[in-house]
Amino acid sequence: MTEDDRHLAPQAEFDGRVARVQRAMAAAGLDALVLTAQDNVAYLTGFDGPTWVNVARPRYCVLAKDGAPVLVVPTTNVPVVRRMTWVQEVRSWVSPNPADDGLSLVAEAVWAVAEPAATVGMEIGPQSRLGMPAGDFLAFRERLAPRRIADADALLREIRKIKTPLEIAAIRQAAAATSRAFARLDAGGDEQAVAGRFRALLFEEGLEDVPYLVAESGLGGYPSLQMAAGGRRLTAGSVLAIDTGARVRGYYCDFNRNFVCGPLPEATRQAHALLWEATEAGIRAAVPGATAAEVWRAMAAVLDAGAAALGARRTQSGRMGHGIGLRLTEPPSIHPEDATVLAPGMVITVEPSLAFEVAAEGGPLTRTLVHEENLVVTEGGPELLSARAPREMTRLE
Amino acid sequence: MTEDDRHLAPQAEFDGRVARVQRAMAAAGLDALVLTAQDNVAYLTGFDGPTWVNVARPRYCVLAKDGAPVLVVPTTNVPVVRRMTWVQEVRSWVSPNPADDGLSLVAEAVWAVAEPAATVGMEIGPQSRLGMPAGDFLAFRERLAPRRIADADALLREIRKIKTPLEIAAIRQAAAATSRAFARLDAGGDEQAVAGRFRALLFEEGLEDVPYLVAESGLGGYPSLQMAAGGRRLTAGSVLAIDTGARVRGYYCDFNRNFVCGPLPEATRQAHALLWEATEAGIRAAVPGATAAEVWRAMAAVLDAGAAALGARRTQSGRMGHGIGLRLTEPPSIHPEDATVLAPGMVITVEPSLAFEVAAEGGPLTRTLVHEENLVVTEGGPELLSARAPREMTRLE
Repeated sequence: MTEDDRHLAPQAEFDGRVARVQRAMAAAGLDALVLTAQDNVAYLTGFDGPTWVNVARPRYCVLAKDGAPVLVVPTTNVPVVRRMTWVQEVRSWVSPNPADDGLSLVAEAVWAVAEPAATVGMEIGPQSRLGMPAGDFLAFRERLAPRRIADADALLREIRKIKTPLEIAAIRQAAAATSRAFARLDAGGDEQAVAGRFRALLFEEGLEDVPYLVAESGLGGYPSLQMAAGGRRLTAGSVLAIDTGARVRGYYCDFNRNFVCGPLPEATRQAHALLWEATEAGIRAAVPGATAAEVWRAMAAVLDAGAAALGARRTQSGRMGHGIGLRLTEPPSIHPEDATVLAPGMVITVEPSLAFEVAAEGGPLTRTLVHEENLVVTEGGPELLSARAPREMTRLE
Repeated sequence: MTEDDRHLAPQAEFDGRVARVQRAMAAAGLDALVLTAQDNVAYLTGFDGPTWVNVARPRYCVLAKDGAPVLVVPTTNVPVVRRMTWVQEVRSWVSPNPADDGLSLVAEAVWAVAEPAATVGMEIGPQSRLGMPAGDFLAFRERLAPRRIADADALLREIRKIKTPLEIAAIRQAAAATSRAFARLDAGGDEQAVAGRFRALLFEEGLEDVPYLVAESGLGGYPSLQMAAGGRRLTAGSVLAIDTGARVRGYYCDFNRNFVCGPLPEATRQAHALLWEATEAGIRAAVPGATAAEVWRAMAAVLDAGAAALGARRTQSGRMGHGIGLRLTEPPSIHPEDATVLAPGMVITVEPSLAFEVAAEGGPLTRTLVHEENLVVTEGGPELLSARAPREMTRLE
């Protein structure tokens, strides 16, 4: 690769992805796809990067039953597309153009490959997001009529559940670098100081992008684990969790670590030990042939067996893990009703959590603890990508 | 504010925002709004932050003709909403739930405040994005029938064009801190080394989040200014541009700076001087009562008057600036057809660019140069928020 081929994978990688998607299109009766979401477009073409932060301009990828994808992008994105992707056929318009923000060009590209009786796949199913205005989507549906629109997102996510070796390598690299950053974390002060130090370590260790970084703390645990660092100071008995979704070549790792200042309250120590065992059970259960639900049940069984004695309970998070990849969270969900059968190449998080009470002046506080690890399912069983969290909570002095 | 009231503005700020939106709803004949986009929801409620990176779960805000907004969010977001927002009425469900990912709760909230003959506003217009799957949007439309759905995004963007003093203060802080980071930038090496150093400086100077950071370089200019830093080394005559969208309390500044290593090619020096003058003209033109198109024409006039003599030309970017705020780019567009009348409180970028040729071994190279500044329109005229780029390009040794 030259200095300009940023992120560009070998041609065989893209050929394989396109072939898998086109096989699935044939099976699903889809004659063409019109994709607008960053992750799906990047998967097929390599077109990724910071320009996607700007949503003033939509970007379209059209894929027919055979042949290579066509990109329809704003003129400003053409140089990026030429440098980041393998796509030859690039059409462009000067955007923003409220009167016709690319729709005519996209419709022409679809008409050329999809008969009136055709079905066109777009990202409309559960957990999808369209990278275009909803009004344009409604107008586009009418332009394509009598062609039918059906969901294409499930098809892409199904294929993307199984990562290629190149994708796994990127997530492995992200998780290893994030593990090194966690191992080096030593700062004290308030949440922001610690989170700031950790973010600096992430970049030092080679992460390219940190879209998700939350840090919460409290006596013996935290109220939730969803917010950016605040001004809360870490004092004796404070437990701080940092959770990050950090990327290498566009691929996320996603896990957290817990830290304690001074003495660990006993309720927290016990909850932490139980969570560590539940995580262990989740990792062990992630073997080819097991379902996502079985991984969930393996963790739930450990938690439910031990929680009552601690006055603790599973949190109502809806799931205890999920796939990762070009998105921070992807299918499957580690959820009691997700029947996805794990297969080699799937990369998932296991993420049990507990709620419990910690004694404090003024009465007990409700606290949460979360553990999360990343693993890839292999023929030989689960392979951890994050460096396993220590059995005893790490001290931050 | 306590250590936990992260980003929460005074109640009067939210009351003012809601009152302005409800007045506009009355004028537009909208009986209720259902909002799903991070920026709009954050504007009315304060609900912002890293959790929005996870798009597996949608979040809804319902606003009636009067009264306070209602938030309908996944259970996992409830603690965040309690700590970050002023909203009392919070309804939640365990998500992801493909069978009903919040839609029933949202429909009930709308039914309670919107008669069958009502019109419900959603984010469907130009440059909008829905924070929910398109399939759910289609199903939701049917659930609300016979209520009509109309665009609400234009209404919100119209109000949000005029920033409040609190919003301007956040952008001013972001732009000032980013200016200090640019002033301290001294690293050499390759694009990634310089961009990495700059990112570290941004956080040191107090930026909270850097969603957008691009860095491109080349002999005498760059091929575009859209890509993350690559491995290109800076050598004699290299011109590097860094452009960043960096946030404080959720608000973006957005501007770039140009740096040269060693001697500046003459063609670049002349193009840079012309761009500096064009930027100056754009800033001067940003007075109350002028239109966005007039600001564009002020810059285009300078560029067109000087470009031919340099063998240069305006780039086909479609616009030369835009609004900034909770989104990296907001209306208005500094575009020849944008008739928006500038008014005090608008915060915009002016962003002229030129394409030209630079002599090189092997033949001339087509290069781009971009200048960008941020300003707020005040009664007294434009007030720069970014520290004005120096007239002579900064040397990076």
